[in-house]
Amino acid sequence: MATTPLQVIPLGGLGEIGKNMTAMQYGNDVILIDAGIMFPENDMLGIDYIIPDFRHFSQQTNLNFRAIIVTHGHEDHTGAIAHVAGAFRAPIYATPLTRGLLEVKLRQARLLEHVDMYTFKAGDTLDLGPFKVETFHVCHSIPDGVGLGINTPVGLIVHSGDFKFDHTPVDRWPPDFAKLASFSSRGVLALLSDSTNADRAGWTPSESVIDEAFDRVFRKATGRIIVSTFASLISRIQQVAAAAQRYDRKMAIAGATMMDNIKMAINLGYLDLPSNLIITLDEAAKRPPKEVVIMATGTQGEPSAVLGRLAAGRHDRLSIQQGDTVIMSAHPIPGNEEMVHRIINRLFQRGANVIYDPIEQVHVSGHASQEEQKLLINLVRPKYFIPVHGELRHLKSHAHLAEQLGIPRENIAVVENGTMLTFDAKGTMTVGDRIPGGYVFVDGSGVGDIGPAVMRDRETLARDGVVVVNAVINSRTREVLADPEIISRGFVFLRDADDLMDSARQTIRRVLQQNPSANGNKYELVQDALGKLFYNETKRRPMIFAFINEV
Amino acid sequence: MATTPLQVIPLGGLGEIGKNMTAMQYGNDVILIDAGIMFPENDMLGIDYIIPDFRHFSQQTNLNFRAIIVTHGHEDHTGAIAHVAGAFRAPIYATPLTRGLLEVKLRQARLLEHVDMYTFKAGDTLDLGPFKVETFHVCHSIPDGVGLGINTPVGLIVHSGDFKFDHTPVDRWPPDFAKLASFSSRGVLALLSDSTNADRAGWTPSESVIDEAFDRVFRKATGRIIVSTFASLISRIQQVAAAAQRYDRKMAIAGATMMDNIKMAINLGYLDLPSNLIITLDEAAKRPPKEVVIMATGTQGEPSAVLGRLAAGRHDRLSIQQGDTVIMSAHPIPGNEEMVHRIINRLFQRGANVIYDPIEQVHVSGHASQEEQKLLINLVRPKYFIPVHGELRHLKSHAHLAEQLGIPRENIAVVENGTMLTFDAKGTMTVGDRIPGGYVFVDGSGVGDIGPAVMRDRETLARDGVVVVNAVINSRTREVLADPEIISRGFVFLRDADDLMDSARQTIRRVLQQNPSANGNKYELVQDALGKLFYNETKRRPMIFAFINEV
Repeated sequence: MATTPLQVIPLGGLGEIGKNMTAMQYGNDVILIDAGIMFPENDMLGIDYIIPDFRHFSQQTNLNFRAIIVTHGHEDHTGAIAHVAGAFRAPIYATPLTRGLLEVKLRQARLLEHVDMYTFKAGDTLDLGPFKVETFHVCHSIPDGVGLGINTPVGLIVHSGDFKFDHTPVDRWPPDFAKLASFSSRGVLALLSDSTNADRAGWTPSESVIDEAFDRVFRKATGRIIVSTFASLISRIQQVAAAAQRYDRKMAIAGATMMDNIKMAINLGYLDLPSNLIITLDEAAKRPPKEVVIMATGTQGEPSAVLGRLAAGRHDRLSIQQGDTVIMSAHPIPGNEEMVHRIINRLFQRGANVIYDPIEQVHVSGHASQEEQKLLINLVRPKYFIPVHGELRHLKSHAHLAEQLGIPRENIAVVENGTMLTFDAKGTMTVGDRIPGGYVFVDGSGVGDIGPAVMRDRETLARDGVVVVNAVINSRTREVLADPEIISRGFVFLRDADDLMDSARQTIRRVLQQNPSANGNKYELVQDALGKLFYNETKRRPMIFAFINEV
Repeated sequence: MATTPLQVIPLGGLGEIGKNMTAMQYGNDVILIDAGIMFPENDMLGIDYIIPDFRHFSQQTNLNFRAIIVTHGHEDHTGAIAHVAGAFRAPIYATPLTRGLLEVKLRQARLLEHVDMYTFKAGDTLDLGPFKVETFHVCHSIPDGVGLGINTPVGLIVHSGDFKFDHTPVDRWPPDFAKLASFSSRGVLALLSDSTNADRAGWTPSESVIDEAFDRVFRKATGRIIVSTFASLISRIQQVAAAAQRYDRKMAIAGATMMDNIKMAINLGYLDLPSNLIITLDEAAKRPPKEVVIMATGTQGEPSAVLGRLAAGRHDRLSIQQGDTVIMSAHPIPGNEEMVHRIINRLFQRGANVIYDPIEQVHVSGHASQEEQKLLINLVRPKYFIPVHGELRHLKSHAHLAEQLGIPRENIAVVENGTMLTFDAKGTMTVGDRIPGGYVFVDGSGVGDIGPAVMRDRETLARDGVVVVNAVINSRTREVLADPEIISRGFVFLRDADDLMDSARQTIRRVLQQNPSANGNKYELVQDALGKLFYNETKRRPMIFAFINEV
């Protein structure tokens, strides 16, 4: 009989809730689920990525971290593994493919030898102190994803993982409906479920519809075909391989990460490619274009990925040729639309025919739509429902669905990251306060050192640039010696701004001569006067720094 | 019989082609169609907007500018009118509503008294020297839009304007199919047609579907309803008014621009509102929430528009209440998705229920989809086809459709802005070179003064910030006097960076003492050394300025 309450806390970045990490605590025992990153939004200038704010846990010394369980191999669930493994002395649990992808990151961070990793197969049960975790297979846009049935002393918590109910997945491994039904028969205290597509009616199409779209495109293509997708989208690589075989093409791989992933997936048995299918880029260059498919990364418009370099004409071994067909087999992640469209336009400009959704359905979402979300709720019939993995608007839609299915409104918790959900010994849920913290920016080697102040300065600099002034005055006569130096960047095109800079120099002289006795605040007077001058002349407000040196 | 060739040149910003302005020249006579702006993409830091590069024309002194014809009142067709009217001494032609919207802009720019404006009604013919322009009504997401049939000495050129074929538009004014058919019977040399939705199959839904969505939302709403849409979307205001009357609600308007537009549209007869429907915001505050609809601007996530202020809790007279229903009756313009989603999330956070597409179809596109685009081509049966108003990918899709309809590939011109299309006296089209020029950024009061160099500097500043150094050395002893001053912005959080700044000061001293004879390049040595230090310590590359003053 339980005497201690269970706490469930969605962590993670901002914007999307309960996505990158979820913590469960019972007494002093804690398990962490996932260790992912968020990508910065367009106005988070200079930020590389954002990691979950797990300081609430890493700063406590009395806790026993039983496990870091990673549900699948996508960046938003694995990308922060080096930070998490560095902060917690806990073993990492993952399925074989997910483990393979995690190992690459841990090796890069020189942490691989320092962590304990355990492999499980979907369906295995993990005994983690007070937590008995029953894993179950789910379909998603990467193989070997799992959801979790977490038996705790206060009840069974089901965590969906990232899922869709695909009856015809490429790897022919449908979701583990039986396990979900068995949970239901045992009684589920709470369900945490993927909300990504909670505003989409109906069912997410099966991955198999992509085969038909590929068929149409391959049938018509008279030149090379270049298929761009995520480096981790193993099932898509399988689908391209199948289409290549149907249309007598050989397949070459551009991009080291994708090649590494393919090798790993073949070794682990997640990818089945005939040995004579894959050729090198050099071999591909020697074959007739009609006999070649090239796989490439760069679907998100990243300038440094293969597709970005092809679009810019800056790839060392490949270039777009008239007659090439480029398939964008991915959707832009929100915020990347402009970059992706720019790449598509540039590929067209270079003579390629570019196929993208909605022109052909060459990609489908990996997340459940409303009907699938409803099915999961009704399969599991939880007492409490906690929508996760989505922006607030998605959680609200998901909550609305759950209500329609008869879950009482007061049993649904739409919460933000950091909110403590407490299940008492009787299994009653209480929504608590938010733990302190927010999001943790990673910029260069700095983790969490960039806050709102630095961000605001970057915004100002980005908007109107910077002007730096160096003036020297005679400390006795207060005379300005020589011409003040003025340097500007990002403010005006200097070659056309001679008049403005002359006015600025006159302004500096005038201010310093009119205020001979001003001491500490001379630089402020100069900055203010220049700020006014520049705004009047340009309607811009650059950041201004003035040094007034007395000699 | 024509002896001179006709030239057609799509101008406009970047990205989208033949959208913001099109020029037609016959001999010395020129007409300009539209005068719109483009909005900057997310990486065009600090840029306010982009205007068409019309310098090729404005710099020629021998040309006779017969007219600036504005096809409808949207920003991407009107926003640059002050720039264009300032550069060309040409009369402006527009339908009544479009004229009303143009006048607001010209008044703000103090140009209204200096330009000649002529009003025409859809269906009127404009005699403009060698151009006889037959205007025809089209449906779009603003009333009073037109397309143009431009009779020239070498043949009839049809310009679609922004259009959709809506059989049940809100203003009950369907497109002028008869005029289009009459063009066809007379023979059309070339069609320039709106490509916005060329990658969308089927028909764009009629505006009337929105009525049904409004009905569903109004029926369920138990509190206030706040409908956000574009200030110029007069037909949507009409639809909201109708729904308000059906559900016994009064309507208040938040936002000065929308109010001005409503008054103008009522005066000109484009909006029909019963006199007792509209109430003030103060009156709305006194009524039961269930009896109120509030119209507001801010669908694109603009922080300063009404909805942005409501989301941030910064509106002086309104705030979101528990039970409010907010309808986002617009789609995000590409590039604005993140901002729009952020606003939606914040409105949910404040207790509103937010309705947006795809949750309900509360907005439809104003542009033709593939079946409508095909219909226009087959109605007009042009000899040449020139897809316009779209990114290159849209023009390519549109060209593909035209080919499917039997227009020979060599008679289709997919061109970029600035490309000269020449129709000779026999009506044969040649695709010429691009005129010099590119895009013209407007930033503050500067027009076209910001180029790639300034932009690159803003990017660097935005990414890693700036560090400014001021050191004073004794010119004889070469000794560094006092501690060098270091200021940084957007680079690191200074309060936590004492050690780094100490190292920086030591580095400056060391460099200056080790290089006593360095003269002009002392500052470079300091900048290089600091650059290395900062990169090693932070993996960031701020812009560094160093002043070394000798006393």
